[in-house]
Amino acid sequence: MPNPTQALAPLKAKLLEIQHLKDAAALLSWDQETYMPAGGGQARAEQLATLQTLAHTKLVSPDIENLLLTTIDPSTGVVHDPDHSLDSADHALFRETWRDFSKAQKLPSDFVNRLERERALAQQVWTQARARNDFAQFLPNLRTVLDLKREEINYRGYTDSPYNALLDTYEPGATVAHLQPLFARLRDGLAELLKHVQASSSRPDNRFLFHSYDCDRQLAFGKLMLDKVGYDFHHGRLDLSEHPFTMAFHPTDVRMTTRVFEKDLPSCIFSCLHEGGHGLYDQGLPQRHYGTPLGEALSLGLHESQSRLWENNVGRSQAFWTYFFPLLQQQFPSQLGSMSVDAFYAALNTVNPSLIRVEADEVTYNLHIMVRFEIELALFDQRIHVEDLPATWREKMQEHLGIVPERDADGVLQDVHWSLGAFGYFPTYTLGNLYAAMFFQQACQDVPTLESEIKQGSLLALKNWLTRRIHQHGRRYSATELLHRVTGQPLSPEPFLSYLQTKIGKIYGFSI
Amino acid sequence: MPNPTQALAPLKAKLLEIQHLKDAAALLSWDQETYMPAGGGQARAEQLATLQTLAHTKLVSPDIENLLLTTIDPSTGVVHDPDHSLDSADHALFRETWRDFSKAQKLPSDFVNRLERERALAQQVWTQARARNDFAQFLPNLRTVLDLKREEINYRGYTDSPYNALLDTYEPGATVAHLQPLFARLRDGLAELLKHVQASSSRPDNRFLFHSYDCDRQLAFGKLMLDKVGYDFHHGRLDLSEHPFTMAFHPTDVRMTTRVFEKDLPSCIFSCLHEGGHGLYDQGLPQRHYGTPLGEALSLGLHESQSRLWENNVGRSQAFWTYFFPLLQQQFPSQLGSMSVDAFYAALNTVNPSLIRVEADEVTYNLHIMVRFEIELALFDQRIHVEDLPATWREKMQEHLGIVPERDADGVLQDVHWSLGAFGYFPTYTLGNLYAAMFFQQACQDVPTLESEIKQGSLLALKNWLTRRIHQHGRRYSATELLHRVTGQPLSPEPFLSYLQTKIGKIYGFSI
Repeated sequence: MPNPTQALAPLKAKLLEIQHLKDAAALLSWDQETYMPAGGGQARAEQLATLQTLAHTKLVSPDIENLLLTTIDPSTGVVHDPDHSLDSADHALFRETWRDFSKAQKLPSDFVNRLERERALAQQVWTQARARNDFAQFLPNLRTVLDLKREEINYRGYTDSPYNALLDTYEPGATVAHLQPLFARLRDGLAELLKHVQASSSRPDNRFLFHSYDCDRQLAFGKLMLDKVGYDFHHGRLDLSEHPFTMAFHPTDVRMTTRVFEKDLPSCIFSCLHEGGHGLYDQGLPQRHYGTPLGEALSLGLHESQSRLWENNVGRSQAFWTYFFPLLQQQFPSQLGSMSVDAFYAALNTVNPSLIRVEADEVTYNLHIMVRFEIELALFDQRIHVEDLPATWREKMQEHLGIVPERDADGVLQDVHWSLGAFGYFPTYTLGNLYAAMFFQQACQDVPTLESEIKQGSLLALKNWLTRRIHQHGRRYSATELLHRVTGQPLSPEPFLSYLQTKIGKIYGFSI
Repeated sequence: MPNPTQALAPLKAKLLEIQHLKDAAALLSWDQETYMPAGGGQARAEQLATLQTLAHTKLVSPDIENLLLTTIDPSTGVVHDPDHSLDSADHALFRETWRDFSKAQKLPSDFVNRLERERALAQQVWTQARARNDFAQFLPNLRTVLDLKREEINYRGYTDSPYNALLDTYEPGATVAHLQPLFARLRDGLAELLKHVQASSSRPDNRFLFHSYDCDRQLAFGKLMLDKVGYDFHHGRLDLSEHPFTMAFHPTDVRMTTRVFEKDLPSCIFSCLHEGGHGLYDQGLPQRHYGTPLGEALSLGLHESQSRLWENNVGRSQAFWTYFFPLLQQQFPSQLGSMSVDAFYAALNTVNPSLIRVEADEVTYNLHIMVRFEIELALFDQRIHVEDLPATWREKMQEHLGIVPERDADGVLQDVHWSLGAFGYFPTYTLGNLYAAMFFQQACQDVPTLESEIKQGSLLALKNWLTRRIHQHGRRYSATELLHRVTGQPLSPEPFLSYLQTKIGKIYGFSI
């Protein structure tokens, strides 16, 4: 039996092959959302299912198991290396690969194949159903996907709540018991903030943001911002899609998409910055670890922290627009020529409960997540059924945001996630917001000139700080460990709440 | 041991998985040529190599061998089905799968991996070298690819000429001994035709084709033509790339590319029609046989017959432009408004030896193929070496076309094929021209109204004839059998020569 060091090279070779399959599958998905002809969907679903199944089968092979067992105690998952022959990176490589292996091993290949096929089909039906505002059309596919996710939970096993099995796939270690108090405190803080906003007599006028703005110019401005934040177009691209997303096939090929509406200036600006944050993370992952867990993003919450940091902490800040607003005015002189940067900044930060999550302001955004989190919990605890979703959605919107959608397209059908079986995913968005506030606070402390640099359009100091402190580590540390290494603190909603209280209080003229 | 019928379902399932891998690899290639960021090439080469290697490994697996041996006599490759349990399609499925299996089995997986990696890299270097007119930059990669192809020939084995091993991979059954007399007769006929053209005092003026034509309008006209010939955009797309090509991921997802130059009207028109012919073949393959050889194109020569038929026999005909020229005039009134359709038709059929194969007229096109065929034969017979290629190219151009390129970019570097290791591929272009002439002659006999329909812009009768007589059969028959089934004749250069003599003679005012 090989020793740990001898096992390393063949293990990496096998993981690299699996990575190539996953990258090819990712390209099939990217293409499906960008350039695939409409009639190609059925064949694509089957091609995707085959690739995902193959990647799964290869990961759970006895070959990989035997290589891992040179080093891992299977009862605990702990690395056993009495001769200290492994360095700490290799340690982490074995630990994380074992984690992936043992999770994958619980799922039969046949199940993976069925799930992948149904996901791809359900996504296509969802697209149509949303366009037609027809939940009933989507219902059979959603039911199938949900049944498959329940089957998945049974394979995975869980403690306390079935929902924990799903949460853990997106945010390793996260549990309902851990999230509920965090979210309760956050919700209270946001509700209080919202009350102050709604009681304020001051109210920024943001209607000009929804006048007419040429789409090509919006896109050109989006690319200009991305260029300045350090997104590398030699190793990436920006395309259009229905739903903006970022997908990486290697740190040297990271693709983003956005969308552009003539009568919605913020949409393109913030989707570019948001996806740009994801893109910088993927471009910043360590190339030398490509193919292994150390070359992968840590968690979805961490990934979202990067997108939200650039979208909000940077992209909705006064410092950012000090530099960029004059450039935006050059693109749109007739619409913005006579506007002040302060008025523009205030308009971008208008707080107003609205129906669509991805267009929500920073205060109400997490309330949209509460809606989804509570619905998902109820679904998997069998307190509600899939056909109840439109009604439950309206109730929860009323409860958390005080408004109710008239159309399911603006309600329960608005997000792609459920069609893809991504239950347990939404909470990572809120985690991302909380991480982002903590990281940004720390960056400002570590780089005292940060704000003045941002005012001059110099964003590379921040990008480099993020790459060095976060991106370059891949999955070497857990999220809790990384957060502690970077900020010295455990996860808490307070930095986020305090950031918002200060910022929004100043705009709306109150203090908490 | 299962009987032939029992082997069929598991065999098809295994082939389908391989097909999905090949389709994913095809998408990786398509993307590389269309949307991949420039810096993503190295990672892409490795991803492609993994997928191709996996597809190869799966094809040569003992599982597939055992399923085939239920039915195939391995010493002869003949289907053995004493109970007559297989229908003729299944017969062909076993025969062709065995053919693929036994060819693939000769190549070690490690070799496939090396070849795929080097091909992808060499293609990227070729692109740069051509842009810089720098053969020396390309030479090391070309040498590596050539060495690999020689290694491949040793694995494959051959009779008579090493080049036969390569020819057979693109055009099953083709041999040097078979092609040489055919090509000699063709060359004599073309040389005679060219002599008449050059002696003629009549000479169409085609300079207006190279005036300025808006690129977007050219592309719109290309799409209009493709629409009318029956190319299905719901199951396909048209993009831009350096080198036009067609790639199918399934009959429901067939993609073409073209290129557009402001000062070259024929380039976009004919690359659209050419790729459209390929696209119609791929869209016309039988979906029910997808994943098996019966769902695949018969040979490259057959594929090229479809592209050349639409490009030349249709697209350079007077009948076609009777309908389309007025539409083209609408797009370009200032350039073409006062032009007659006869003058336009004559200009499109100007015969003039030129440097670039893909821009050659119908008379000189095959002389470009002779240049490449003779160079490839000399390379693999070791009569010349890779570093001799630029000089040999100039000699052969002088010999066959009477002109010599000043720059390698217009000579030996013009085609992508060698970078991809596609030696033995060029002769299939000439075969395609010969097949096309025979098929089109037959279509005109079978559908007596064809010409008058084309004059009215009704091209679906021809498209449907081609689908029914050719596309729908996939690889069920050999090329020789199919040609005989469709035309009742063996392959001959005479229909092609006689078609050209009549057409070109009429334009240039001579008769042979």
